[in-house]
Amino acid sequence: MNDFRSVGRVTPQVARFDEEIPLQSGASLLGFTLVYETYGTLNAAGTNAVLVCHALSGNHHVAGFYDPQRPGKTVGWWDNLVGPGKPLDTERFFVVGVNNLGGCHGSTGPMSVNPGTGKPYGADFPLVTVEDWVDAQARLADYLGIDAWAAVIGGSLGGMQALQWTLAYPERVRHGVVIASAPKLSAQNIAFNEVARQAILSDPDFHGGHYYEHGVIPRRGLRLARMVGHITYLSDDQMAEKFGRQLKHGRRSFHYEVEFEIESYLRHQGDKFAETFDANTYLLITKALDYFDPAFACEGDLRAAFARTRAKFFVASFTTDWRFAPERGREIVRALLHNGREVSYAEIECAAGHDSFLLDDPHYHQALAAYLQGIAS
Amino acid sequence: MNDFRSVGRVTPQVARFDEEIPLQSGASLLGFTLVYETYGTLNAAGTNAVLVCHALSGNHHVAGFYDPQRPGKTVGWWDNLVGPGKPLDTERFFVVGVNNLGGCHGSTGPMSVNPGTGKPYGADFPLVTVEDWVDAQARLADYLGIDAWAAVIGGSLGGMQALQWTLAYPERVRHGVVIASAPKLSAQNIAFNEVARQAILSDPDFHGGHYYEHGVIPRRGLRLARMVGHITYLSDDQMAEKFGRQLKHGRRSFHYEVEFEIESYLRHQGDKFAETFDANTYLLITKALDYFDPAFACEGDLRAAFARTRAKFFVASFTTDWRFAPERGREIVRALLHNGREVSYAEIECAAGHDSFLLDDPHYHQALAAYLQGIAS
Repeated sequence: MNDFRSVGRVTPQVARFDEEIPLQSGASLLGFTLVYETYGTLNAAGTNAVLVCHALSGNHHVAGFYDPQRPGKTVGWWDNLVGPGKPLDTERFFVVGVNNLGGCHGSTGPMSVNPGTGKPYGADFPLVTVEDWVDAQARLADYLGIDAWAAVIGGSLGGMQALQWTLAYPERVRHGVVIASAPKLSAQNIAFNEVARQAILSDPDFHGGHYYEHGVIPRRGLRLARMVGHITYLSDDQMAEKFGRQLKHGRRSFHYEVEFEIESYLRHQGDKFAETFDANTYLLITKALDYFDPAFACEGDLRAAFARTRAKFFVASFTTDWRFAPERGREIVRALLHNGREVSYAEIECAAGHDSFLLDDPHYHQALAAYLQGIAS
Repeated sequence: MNDFRSVGRVTPQVARFDEEIPLQSGASLLGFTLVYETYGTLNAAGTNAVLVCHALSGNHHVAGFYDPQRPGKTVGWWDNLVGPGKPLDTERFFVVGVNNLGGCHGSTGPMSVNPGTGKPYGADFPLVTVEDWVDAQARLADYLGIDAWAAVIGGSLGGMQALQWTLAYPERVRHGVVIASAPKLSAQNIAFNEVARQAILSDPDFHGGHYYEHGVIPRRGLRLARMVGHITYLSDDQMAEKFGRQLKHGRRSFHYEVEFEIESYLRHQGDKFAETFDANTYLLITKALDYFDPAFACEGDLRAAFARTRAKFFVASFTTDWRFAPERGREIVRALLHNGREVSYAEIECAAGHDSFLLDDPHYHQALAAYLQGIAS
């Protein structure tokens, strides 16, 4: 059944922008490239476009597959959500996925060649923010001929981008769909990011961010960063249910090799990630997370910050998400309601913690499908 | 006021044991040394002795100070609890603190010389368990002429040792005082330990645990291990209150140096720890934590496991402790009550998370003092 509801084989596309883009840091890029994918068809009026924003480890490959011989191995990260007849229905909507600026999957980032030196940017790539990402995405919207998105949707860090769209371009987004997200990181959230960063920065193979030139990657650091991340993506209960205290050999082995199932899972996730993700990109994305705080300019008053929104909103949280707990979603809802915005809020009972937003929990998908069906296209 | 309630200047003592001690792993040590401190006076009947068991980073230096010129800098880790007129009153009790087997503060451990090779044990030091620690502590009790402890008390991993005493030596402990502890680690607890271990094991300066010979220490790994540990010791709320999202320079700096206060705190804690703690000891203590599971031999039935206890119990949990949440304390209480044990349980509202057990929250100290006052000495 999943098969015939797939958008099928997809091919990434590349948009080049030759104009300068100023960044929040004060730096700027003289030109940049964004890699993106689209699913469905843009209608004549250009009113049915939906932008999907990715989270920490995501990218532009949202739905469909690359290799028909290995569809499962090359499937998009939100394929369960996006496709014909799926909650984000590609028979109605023209859906766009994009790799953010600073990414490591084709868009301009630390692995790209710095025109000033002819070598990869590495650590010289400027730090980018959620604001910068949204500004770059707005250039992509221009390029694609999309005046306003029917919706901008994202989970976690992607939800922050959806929020930022409604703040920076209130006339260009009709619906903000913010899932498993928060209006800013807590001190604990920042603390976990800092451990991940220190793991990478202190890896001797990091070479101050110029590891490409040394022919190595800070594998150890990336692996640890991903391991600590994964702990925060799962709920305590689900970890207990999935892995418990199961001993691989049924008894204590008295060595530091894998003994408990959870150790095996974390090492596997860490190893896999270290092979496929760029450390400089990981670092800058964690900083973008730390920095996001739309209320900062309003002395911490989120209600004041949200005064300029114009969109309607769907906000969803998951009961077992301790990274961005439901209270963080409710903060967003309250501040929007204060400004008279129309907000639907779903608090979903799903055991999977923060990662729930990537799964196809039936209540979650039903709630999202119902909301998206109500959007005029 | 703290001053005149101090046990004053103290000096560690050393007990040498020449007999072989068999370990849970099947290995054994042909002899061993325990370093310990005592406060107060053992009464003639030997009935007023209290053993204080330490947690992950603790040791035998529980109370008093080493250097009268710098009492604050050389004070014991539970000095707020132990002293004349304090909750664990040294005018009534003879209190013993001991550095566990495998430790790095004077007791036989990875830094000790392996008599078989004439070089430090390093990675060849056998893994030890909570059971082994308690067995070694029992030898120390014999050495000190203590047939039975009035109480064995500990927080966190120390609480596990208190529990283990009531299981392994039911006739030798009258009161088990188990604070901020759990009957076993959860998958999430193990996951955090595993990240800490991998940080150390993958540090190039670890040299397979034989770093002493190379004249280096795996500083990066230890530092990361401690940073991730500290996140779990504090509550989300307290971190928010203590550090919030305070920016060191009042604005985003767009680099990877310290920006948020929480980053400064974690790096400082990590750096300090890496200078003072041994990596092999850290590794083996995390394994002892992972392994502790008295119900394992009873097919997971804690009630069956606790059938052989004879002591009375005081169990305390802290509402904001998410490492060992109150539910973990209640598990212990229920299993003890099932066996008809006399149990006092206090669930303390204290903002400081797991670390609360080290602090002097008034309700916590009052509850503990009241219980300890009721103990016949």
